[in-house]
Amino acid sequence: MLIPDLVGVFVFGLSGGLAAVRARLDLFGVLVLAGITALGGGVLRDVLLGLTPPFALRHWPYLAVALAGGLVTFRMSAQVERLRRAYLVLDAAGLGLFTVTATKLGLMHGLGVAGACAIGVTTGIGGGVLRDVLIREVPVVLHSEIYAVAALIGAAAACVCHQLGVLQVPEQVAAAALVFVIRVIALRRGWNAPIARP
Amino acid sequence: MLIPDLVGVFVFGLSGGLAAVRARLDLFGVLVLAGITALGGGVLRDVLLGLTPPFALRHWPYLAVALAGGLVTFRMSAQVERLRRAYLVLDAAGLGLFTVTATKLGLMHGLGVAGACAIGVTTGIGGGVLRDVLIREVPVVLHSEIYAVAALIGAAAACVCHQLGVLQVPEQVAAAALVFVIRVIALRRGWNAPIARP
Amino acid sequence: MLIPDLVGVFVFGLSGGLAAVRARLDLFGVLVLAGITALGGGVLRDVLLGLTPPFALRHWPYLAVALAGGLVTFRMSAQVERLRRAYLVLDAAGLGLFTVTATKLGLMHGLGVAGACAIGVTTGIGGGVLRDVLIREVPVVLHSEIYAVAALIGAAAACVCHQLGVLQVPEQVAAAALVFVIRVIALRRGWNAPIARP
Repeated sequence: MLIPDLVGVFVFGLSGGLAAVRARLDLFGVLVLAGITALGGGVLRDVLLGLTPPFALRHWPYLAVALAGGLVTFRMSAQVERLRRAYLVLDAAGLGLFTVTATKLGLMHGLGVAGACAIGVTTGIGGGVLRDVLIREVPVVLHSEIYAVAALIGAAAACVCHQLGVLQVPEQVAAAALVFVIRVIALRRGWNAPIARP
Repeated sequence: MLIPDLVGVFVFGLSGGLAAVRARLDLFGVLVLAGITALGGGVLRDVLLGLTPPFALRHWPYLAVALAGGLVTFRMSAQVERLRRAYLVLDAAGLGLFTVTATKLGLMHGLGVAGACAIGVTTGIGGGVLRDVLIREVPVVLHSEIYAVAALIGAAAACVCHQLGVLQVPEQVAAAALVFVIRVIALRRGWNAPIARP
Repeated sequence: MLIPDLVGVFVFGLSGGLAAVRARLDLFGVLVLAGITALGGGVLRDVLLGLTPPFALRHWPYLAVALAGGLVTFRMSAQVERLRRAYLVLDAAGLGLFTVTATKLGLMHGLGVAGACAIGVTTGIGGGVLRDVLIREVPVVLHSEIYAVAALIGAAAACVCHQLGVLQVPEQVAAAALVFVIRVIALRRGWNAPIARP
């Protein structure tokens, strides 16, 4: 799973870098935001499960690839913005991958369905939430688009497979693909979750 | 202690849900904010004490009740606002309960008085601080009302009892009641902590 | 290393207290912000390395000195502002000390160069980042001045010494001094890191 993982980290790094460039951060800020967006979800996951030091700190390619994402946006943010469509599709794939991997890890560490789904979604959206908080925005996943809900459905699907005793690699890929498909359809159709009437 | 605990979680969930509805978050955002407000303090406590995975992730009723609080505010935020007085009283009770339980847990894990008070207050106010940061407000406990100070006094009282060797259930209830009484009086009288002269 | 450590904690506490007074927080908020700014980086370090409960919670002088920094700014913020130059110099010393100590700790816990540098920089800047997020500002280290970059260079220098097998106390002091010198020169010359062209 190493290569898809690193692709996801790179794309999440781009997303952090783009936000940082837009917020007029300096080079260091762009790299930090890329790193936190790409690795923050996984670090939260490991801290919550007690798997310290976090995986991303023990494997330098993760840090390197995340920072590479930041560097690319620092040098070429206009070009990355122009490839927005491709980038959002890869981001959706990363969301599925990270969410399902983390859900599985939670289940393996003795969590029940509720806890494992919470870990899965936290891992999938955690980096983006930290990114938005650091540049002083209300996290986008909390107020618009269908992003976290896609992650939640994938996490729940993985838990169902686990309960049925069949959460092997093919089922994990299927659950991640489910996240991906929901997210991409939601993007195309401009879906949003409902907002409470005031 | 399960039932009072869950009542506290529910009321903290309402508080997160109300803030989320006011900030125009979507349904998912309301549920997340309810969950983080209700469980965030306890999760911080468990992570700081090394008790991972956190209790709230290992016991699904906690997550379920927190999300129920969010769902209620999503559907009926106007009614919940109208019951504001009852809700603030229950919130004060939750503050006392969570703070004293966490202080005791800190003492049991070898912390001294200062560390245990810090854990107690962090647990009591942590969820609310995370709630406010996520909707881009300066945490209310840092600039107005007597809320955290009530928690601090209760935590200190629990530590005194512990030093005297008498921190059993009755003393814990008394310390939590002390938090409750201070908080409720402060609410009625509109007390605030002093602010530095500019 | 206890005395320099506590001096650093006190100065970081002043920095948190000053920000809190400027943001019009109340007495409790000033103390909390002083505590989080002074100890937040070390707490993050310990949580990431799995060294729980964090050192700062197990040694009351750390909490006491951090809160003392807050109390001083609450009572005498104008005077502290006037001593800004001395205070920034001490802050630079604290940055060097905390960064290099944490980098060493990371290396001792089996991290590689990348992970240890990440832990070192996180520890050095973490408290200030939490401070800025809590008062709703974009963390200053992410958009201006040379602060985190100084920390990063010191962490890297410590790692080089470690790879050469010579990271003892003199080398640690030298790496911390390197951070200090870079930071102080950057302050005097008004250096900033580059910002991406829009």
